[in-house]
Amino acid sequence: MRITRDSDIEGAPVDMEGAKHVVKKILIGPEHGSHDIIKRLFHISPGGHTPYHTHDYEHLVKVQRGRGVVVDKDGTKHELAPGQNVFVEPNEKHQFANPFAEPFELTCTIPNPGK
Amino acid sequence: MRITRDSDIEGAPVDMEGAKHVVKKILIGPEHGSHDIIKRLFHISPGGHTPYHTHDYEHLVKVQRGRGVVVDKDGTKHELAPGQNVFVEPNEKHQFANPFAEPFELTCTIPNPGK
Repeated sequence: MRITRDSDIEGAPVDMEGAKHVVKKILIGPEHGSHDIIKRLFHISPGGHTPYHTHDYEHLVKVQRGRGVVVDKDGTKHELAPGQNVFVEPNEKHQFANPFAEPFELTCTIPNPGK
Repeated sequence: MRITRDSDIEGAPVDMEGAKHVVKKILIGPEHGSHDIIKRLFHISPGGHTPYHTHDYEHLVKVQRGRGVVVDKDGTKHELAPGQNVFVEPNEKHQFANPFAEPFELTCTIPNPGK
């Protein structure tokens, strides 16, 4: 068993093309012993966004703090707030963005791609 | 893409031996299209607890609300609050309990056992 605390984990800026003002923390990952699943926390500052992209694994997202939007494969924006969850299918185009004035935080859980 | 809202999902009492005052919601699961991972929300009322048990899949837990404890394989209790995460290894004995006066809520993400 491993217990981690969000505030003790060092974040790293997401340095991908199309990402802006996004910091990622690994809340639970292989370094804590997990094998099948990885849980990440994304902090998106006002004006920031993740890439509008696709990948071959599913996303299970839970909003933790603030407000933001998810952009679906058709380019439609859906506003998000705490208490909401987003499932993104493998190979489905998506983007998370923060057009608001407060930080937007979400957890994003994925199958371990290194498994 | 599927967007779900915790408050729109109907909870079901956990009817397992050793469980008390626990309600489970499937936030994202196969019924929403997920294949590899299932995200559940557990609401543990004051005085309630999950079974002190083991199973062959890992748990990735995030505290959402209130306070509670996790009991490890040695019987040691670790207090939990929002901002904390718990990784439980496959086949590691564990229990989540709420000895406090307010509701305790956590998400628990698992590999899809039906995969």
